[in-house]
Amino acid sequence: MTIQAMDASHVALVVLSLRSEKFEEYRCDRPQTLGISIGNLSKLVKVAGNDDSISLRADDEARVLILTFRGKNSERTSEFQLNLLTLESEHLGVIDQEYVAEITMPSLEFGRICRELAQITDTITIAADKEIVNFAVSGDIGSGSVAIKPNDSDKPDEKCIIKVSELVSMNFALRYLNLFNKASMLSNEVSISLSPEVPISLQYEFELGELRYYLAPKIAEDA
Amino acid sequence: MTIQAMDASHVALVVLSLRSEKFEEYRCDRPQTLGISIGNLSKLVKVAGNDDSISLRADDEARVLILTFRGKNSERTSEFQLNLLTLESEHLGVIDQEYVAEITMPSLEFGRICRELAQITDTITIAADKEIVNFAVSGDIGSGSVAIKPNDSDKPDEKCIIKVSELVSMNFALRYLNLFNKASMLSNEVSISLSPEVPISLQYEFELGELRYYLAPKIAEDA
Amino acid sequence: MTIQAMDASHVALVVLSLRSEKFEEYRCDRPQTLGISIGNLSKLVKVAGNDDSISLRADDEARVLILTFRGKNSERTSEFQLNLLTLESEHLGVIDQEYVAEITMPSLEFGRICRELAQITDTITIAADKEIVNFAVSGDIGSGSVAIKPNDSDKPDEKCIIKVSELVSMNFALRYLNLFNKASMLSNEVSISLSPEVPISLQYEFELGELRYYLAPKIAEDA
Repeated sequence: MTIQAMDASHVALVVLSLRSEKFEEYRCDRPQTLGISIGNLSKLVKVAGNDDSISLRADDEARVLILTFRGKNSERTSEFQLNLLTLESEHLGVIDQEYVAEITMPSLEFGRICRELAQITDTITIAADKEIVNFAVSGDIGSGSVAIKPNDSDKPDEKCIIKVSELVSMNFALRYLNLFNKASMLSNEVSISLSPEVPISLQYEFELGELRYYLAPKIAEDA
Repeated sequence: MTIQAMDASHVALVVLSLRSEKFEEYRCDRPQTLGISIGNLSKLVKVAGNDDSISLRADDEARVLILTFRGKNSERTSEFQLNLLTLESEHLGVIDQEYVAEITMPSLEFGRICRELAQITDTITIAADKEIVNFAVSGDIGSGSVAIKPNDSDKPDEKCIIKVSELVSMNFALRYLNLFNKASMLSNEVSISLSPEVPISLQYEFELGELRYYLAPKIAEDA
Repeated sequence: MTIQAMDASHVALVVLSLRSEKFEEYRCDRPQTLGISIGNLSKLVKVAGNDDSISLRADDEARVLILTFRGKNSERTSEFQLNLLTLESEHLGVIDQEYVAEITMPSLEFGRICRELAQITDTITIAADKEIVNFAVSGDIGSGSVAIKPNDSDKPDEKCIIKVSELVSMNFALRYLNLFNKASMLSNEVSISLSPEVPISLQYEFELGELRYYLAPKIAEDA
């Protein structure tokens, strides 16, 4: 099961993949694309208790998604019908991309860097060579950078792997990266992939599947 | 000692009763009704420390309520005069009402249902029969309901008792119920009483007394 | 190293003194006054991790302050250039003042009194004699006061010392005192010094130095 969402300005894309074998029960007779308001889905899912089992159901040609929540002792059950949206575009096929730089680092560390640098300005320059990744900003109040070196620690909150086949330096909007960074609660590690002129990819693996964000680089005119 | 307050639109009433024997000292020479701004009283009471003893005092024909806070070791004492309000109406005699449905359930559970359903729309339909209580909403984004069955667990955060002599189904404004639900920190249990066309009553018992809320049902034109 | 800042309306002054021997390394070839935006400095300092070592550097005739943060294991280093401000006035020589009343009390207690009394009105009257310190307010909703007596407890969160050579009673704006009270996280104790017609001084001692606030009294026309 894959969930895709794109922001209104079409610069950011998120893809959540949940492995079917991780569901207690999973049946899908034929591939189907449902248009769901993420905001409304999240309102309904909050009604479920932490220990509730959740079932999602949609018929062929479905106009509603049926959610059922059942408490452990079944003394409480909830059922909701969520109206589906008409999709303007079909499911996007994301092209598998080769990247010239791949950095795996602690997700909290990456989150902290993006959050704090956003205080200075919105555009971050991420530059990577074999030895170092550099996160730099320059704004009215001054300028500066954070440099990260590889660390082969076993601890996921210290480990940092840098694989670079070609120097790369690109600009991104921190306000998007900071939205993506909420995913750091799902995984200790984030894998950052970069190649000139293609969107950056941030990938978070977790038990049930993976969450992947794409963000188009800022080009000079945007800066 | 009984404290009553009604909201400006006169659809909600709260009655707090504190048992006189639970006070360290209690003297009331004759019944007296004082008009107090709850907001201002709460500002003053916050000045007291958690372990302070609080004394409240009002003379006959009082124009101020005198609050005294005294620290455990008496190295700190505070005294405040709170200006009283002129009351438009006298103390309301709340009529003892027979109800066709009485539900006792965990107060946190009731609070969570009201809070989450309020995300969908403001009008909740509470329907009860002998076997089940149903909390339902229907809004732009979809519709749904939470069903609660009786549970004779000994744990107050699971126990649920449903006594229904007649089917009942009524509509209420969730924004009020969610204000009332703050009282769930006073008691593990809430007793919900319903009868057609009379206000719902929510009752929270705690060591010092009881807190009771009344809310008029929504009629069709309000919905 | 001393940091001074004054509020825009020139009624409050803060002086932070850090003892040079408490730095790992400290070099200052000649006295120098740098104009720094506290807000911008604080944005940059937040980029540092809790365990990072921080170095501050400025050349003669400096136009930027250079901040370097280094992680424990040096796998992360950050360097920032903070643009300096042109100062309108030079370093202020704060005159050593004799005070007629000096009160040392728990900083959390003083903070709580100021915070809660601010709910009633903005002007606080602090009055001290040999036996008692009185914090009083009077507003639309009523009036009241908190009285503190000396307490020779050994516990810093109870101890209260009152040294008064002359009765004193002065008015201050609580909104400033409440800003100052954020310093209560630095020290368990606050020393309050009062003399008629001169600014109140609040002094917080901590391991690395001391933080001192001055606030001009409110005179009748302000009240």
